[in-house]
Amino acid sequence: MKKYNNGDFRLKDVGNKITVYGWVNKRRDMGGVIFIDLRDRSGFLQIVFNREYLKDDFLKAESLRNEFCIEVTGILQKRDEEMINPKIPTGEVELMVENLNILSEAEPVPFNIYEDSDVNEAVGLKYRYLELRKNKLQNTIITRHQITAAVREFLNKKDFLEIETPILCKSTPEGARDYIVPSRISPGSFYALPQSPQIFKQLLMVSGFEKYYQIAKCFRDEDLRADRQPEFTQIDLEMSFANDEDVMNLTEEMLKYVVKKVKNIELDKFPRLTWHEAMDKYGSDKPDTRFELYLNDITDILKDSSMRVFSESIKDGGIAKCLIVKNNGDKYSRSDIEHMIEFVKIYGAKGMAWLKYDNDQFNGVIAKNLEDEKLLAIKEKFNIDNNDLILIVVAKPKIVYSSLGALRLKIGNELNLIAKDKYNFLWVTDFPMFEYSETDKRYKAMHHPFTMPSSIEDLKDKEKCLSVSYDIVLNGYELGGGSVRIHDPKMQNIVFDALGLTKEQIKEKFGFFTDAFKFGAPPHAGLAMGLERATMLLTGTDNIKDVIAFPKTQTASDLMSEAPSIVSKEQLNELSLKVEVKKDE
Amino acid sequence: MKKYNNGDFRLKDVGNKITVYGWVNKRRDMGGVIFIDLRDRSGFLQIVFNREYLKDDFLKAESLRNEFCIEVTGILQKRDEEMINPKIPTGEVELMVENLNILSEAEPVPFNIYEDSDVNEAVGLKYRYLELRKNKLQNTIITRHQITAAVREFLNKKDFLEIETPILCKSTPEGARDYIVPSRISPGSFYALPQSPQIFKQLLMVSGFEKYYQIAKCFRDEDLRADRQPEFTQIDLEMSFANDEDVMNLTEEMLKYVVKKVKNIELDKFPRLTWHEAMDKYGSDKPDTRFELYLNDITDILKDSSMRVFSESIKDGGIAKCLIVKNNGDKYSRSDIEHMIEFVKIYGAKGMAWLKYDNDQFNGVIAKNLEDEKLLAIKEKFNIDNNDLILIVVAKPKIVYSSLGALRLKIGNELNLIAKDKYNFLWVTDFPMFEYSETDKRYKAMHHPFTMPSSIEDLKDKEKCLSVSYDIVLNGYELGGGSVRIHDPKMQNIVFDALGLTKEQIKEKFGFFTDAFKFGAPPHAGLAMGLERATMLLTGTDNIKDVIAFPKTQTASDLMSEAPSIVSKEQLNELSLKVEVKKDE
Repeated sequence: MKKYNNGDFRLKDVGNKITVYGWVNKRRDMGGVIFIDLRDRSGFLQIVFNREYLKDDFLKAESLRNEFCIEVTGILQKRDEEMINPKIPTGEVELMVENLNILSEAEPVPFNIYEDSDVNEAVGLKYRYLELRKNKLQNTIITRHQITAAVREFLNKKDFLEIETPILCKSTPEGARDYIVPSRISPGSFYALPQSPQIFKQLLMVSGFEKYYQIAKCFRDEDLRADRQPEFTQIDLEMSFANDEDVMNLTEEMLKYVVKKVKNIELDKFPRLTWHEAMDKYGSDKPDTRFELYLNDITDILKDSSMRVFSESIKDGGIAKCLIVKNNGDKYSRSDIEHMIEFVKIYGAKGMAWLKYDNDQFNGVIAKNLEDEKLLAIKEKFNIDNNDLILIVVAKPKIVYSSLGALRLKIGNELNLIAKDKYNFLWVTDFPMFEYSETDKRYKAMHHPFTMPSSIEDLKDKEKCLSVSYDIVLNGYELGGGSVRIHDPKMQNIVFDALGLTKEQIKEKFGFFTDAFKFGAPPHAGLAMGLERATMLLTGTDNIKDVIAFPKTQTASDLMSEAPSIVSKEQLNELSLKVEVKKDE
Repeated sequence: MKKYNNGDFRLKDVGNKITVYGWVNKRRDMGGVIFIDLRDRSGFLQIVFNREYLKDDFLKAESLRNEFCIEVTGILQKRDEEMINPKIPTGEVELMVENLNILSEAEPVPFNIYEDSDVNEAVGLKYRYLELRKNKLQNTIITRHQITAAVREFLNKKDFLEIETPILCKSTPEGARDYIVPSRISPGSFYALPQSPQIFKQLLMVSGFEKYYQIAKCFRDEDLRADRQPEFTQIDLEMSFANDEDVMNLTEEMLKYVVKKVKNIELDKFPRLTWHEAMDKYGSDKPDTRFELYLNDITDILKDSSMRVFSESIKDGGIAKCLIVKNNGDKYSRSDIEHMIEFVKIYGAKGMAWLKYDNDQFNGVIAKNLEDEKLLAIKEKFNIDNNDLILIVVAKPKIVYSSLGALRLKIGNELNLIAKDKYNFLWVTDFPMFEYSETDKRYKAMHHPFTMPSSIEDLKDKEKCLSVSYDIVLNGYELGGGSVRIHDPKMQNIVFDALGLTKEQIKEKFGFFTDAFKFGAPPHAGLAMGLERATMLLTGTDNIKDVIAFPKTQTASDLMSEAPSIVSKEQLNELSLKVEVKKDE
């Protein structure tokens, strides 16, 4: 069967006798003539059934309904002038049908697949195979393919090896979010599905493969947010005899290659910010740099203010930062600002002070209380002008960053400051090595415990110690990240020690893995990137389900196949398992 | 860090100052001079430490042991004439070290990684990251990468889309060999890991993606034979508006492309045999065609013999076939032949008759009993000559095929008849649609129930009905197979009916899947191929573990990470599960 792309026919093909296949997309019955847009993956071709020409076969054409799958043979002809449709690539031609073969009939489909309207999620997922006929979803799935194809092309050329790592892995004591798989052969034992191939890819470096990658399936059994799925895919790579610069340069070159291939856009060199710079300027470790609204420091100005709400907080380790909304003060009423204050409270801020500058003077509650010289200092430092709005949070750095970082995004969206057509890639480097967990009352590794610290010396101060790590950020989303890994067992033990792990815990958690480093481990570094996120950003969708052929709902179920489901008692017996569902919990 | 390939240095590079990295592979200490083969993924470079040149640093060089990972800088020089090693590509050059940096020390490794000797399996798998340093395993893993890279290159060029299908799938009532995954969110419910993406790829055809492929992870919880693994990978493809010829032609072109890329061998057109022809000639549906030892039919000759052991068996539906071992009769003593008789009994044969032709006459037990004209008929039909051995099995076709098919392979190996350097690809087509299951006392689908039968008419005789199916065979192994699928719900119902499935069973087993075909399913066909098997055949290993980076043992455990393992009570509680290991079972 010779299968053409319906969307490829042009004037130059006129006169050819061809057979084409596809689905009835739209059907216009003009009495003696029926026009159909015949759809396939490549697009549409208009086909024409003429009663006088087809005679008895015209009856068959009249029976056609939307989504019938058909085969037609005929002569390609130029459309009449008034029928030309400049909006579609095949708009100048049409097929005059001589022969029609109905391959499959179709019942009426449960939703409109021809328009870019959203389908009720439950219905769409139940009939996912029909939803996937929608143009938008076909495109996202095709783009996803193009991204992985480009990644592989690039990495293969760079002598990377794609090596598959296991899906049936070891469950780790930390693996609270592991999906587990009961073993039939070892009753009472379980495998775990991997949350990432981290351990295996580092072992492959120990083995000497030097350059590894994998488009790897990963799994996490967590309570799903809108942008999470229980299974997801990661572009995973690791390099030996390589440092942070090597990985960042390679990744940058790869992303440029991908964006050029997929979007035909040439990207400039990616800017870099340290974690501290990013927090300081954007209040975020994944800043959206597509708009210029920054967190400005006014700690120096406010630290000796008579307003004790400011000065005492600063004395107590707090900082003062403000957003300056230039020339848009009139967009925000007092009640809007009240809503903003409620908004920053979500992020732990106790309040937010604000100033408006209008008619050459400051307004707002604190304009009366703050010393004139402070107001003047602010005005001069930031060239405050009429219609500017200043939003001030004074608190512990973490709270200032998260509250003003979030408010910055909110305002950017509200005022349409964000250049939606831009792809602003950015490296954020030098993350803190540790972060204090309030829940566990101890320091944890911010990245993972195999991350190289900036130096042994630095490890002494856990608050200040940095790691040799890097995140790749795109338009305010963390696409991925990585680090230089520790390859020296002595260094690793010092880090484990800093994390408060005992010898027994180390052995239990990482036993065989740390053993491997006793046999001549090379220096190595790597990175992992979320494929779904990358595809979402490159296709402009904010729904992760749009970039997965068969996604799951927020309760991790597949509405089409009805998974998960009950299994038989015999099957559970064979696995030595019993289900004990507790009621009323 | 600029990382060169150690194996790439040649005379043209002499005089350059370079820094290289790698592992100490072999170390020869000549007193004042130490020679080391520095290994990396690409090969070896000889590096030289000279005491007079290095002074105090020579002490550090003396501390080097096997598998230390090091960085050295020096000048590349031509080796002295007598030191030239023509066996390795870098054999004419060596690096005179000026600077040595020990990156990682190594404890003595638990087995010899420098020779192509087999390691005790348990030790090798426990230290898999070290076993993977062995040349043989590096090569198989690299070849596996090259195969998948070539497959993707080829299919991408042909406009196939790689689309990921889920790993967390629905457990089916038939899924006795499914690995299952308990759901935390739906207590008492389970996902299943897919045994293949069959259902999803067919749904993608219904969706209109037209050309799908995936290098797909599959899972089967079966009692493992030596050549099976609980997780394996399959090259999986499906095409719409395509028939069996289209899939076979594409696959053949793909395999030629892969073999050219990986082995630099140009393959001829793949021969084709129907299933009946293959059974008839080779006694196997996956014949090894690298040697000419065939099953010859002598039913006509023996059917009216006075030897009732033959004639009655034939009257009862049996057939008579023989292998003719030309000019090798002297290789098999009477006791060897006794062993052969025991061998065919494994396959259900009640016995095996034999004839030797020596000194221009037949010998053997039946030479006395079989009519002279029968002996003559055999002699003439097959040009029997001195030193020929004839091995005869008369039984039901199934038994004749399997016993002589197996004996054929045994003899081929024993007599070294098999051209080991050949890649004999072969298509076997037109498999029976059904096979009778003695265990279940009913007909089952030989391929799967979505396979297109040769015609509706043929479905009436289940013994004779064929399917539109094809297997790709290489050197006696089934690499993979596929079929044209049923796309018409009416046809599907007739097949379900023939399989004795009730409406309820159909709904329970395939519910949503058969629904999908009501909405304009295109004709489609596809194929799946085992990646591990392909890699084994192209690397010449007969151990599946050699082509998997981190394989599991025959009891499906990972000796390195010690998976599967016990999980915590809390984790089981969260999943509403209880382990009940029955004792003394």
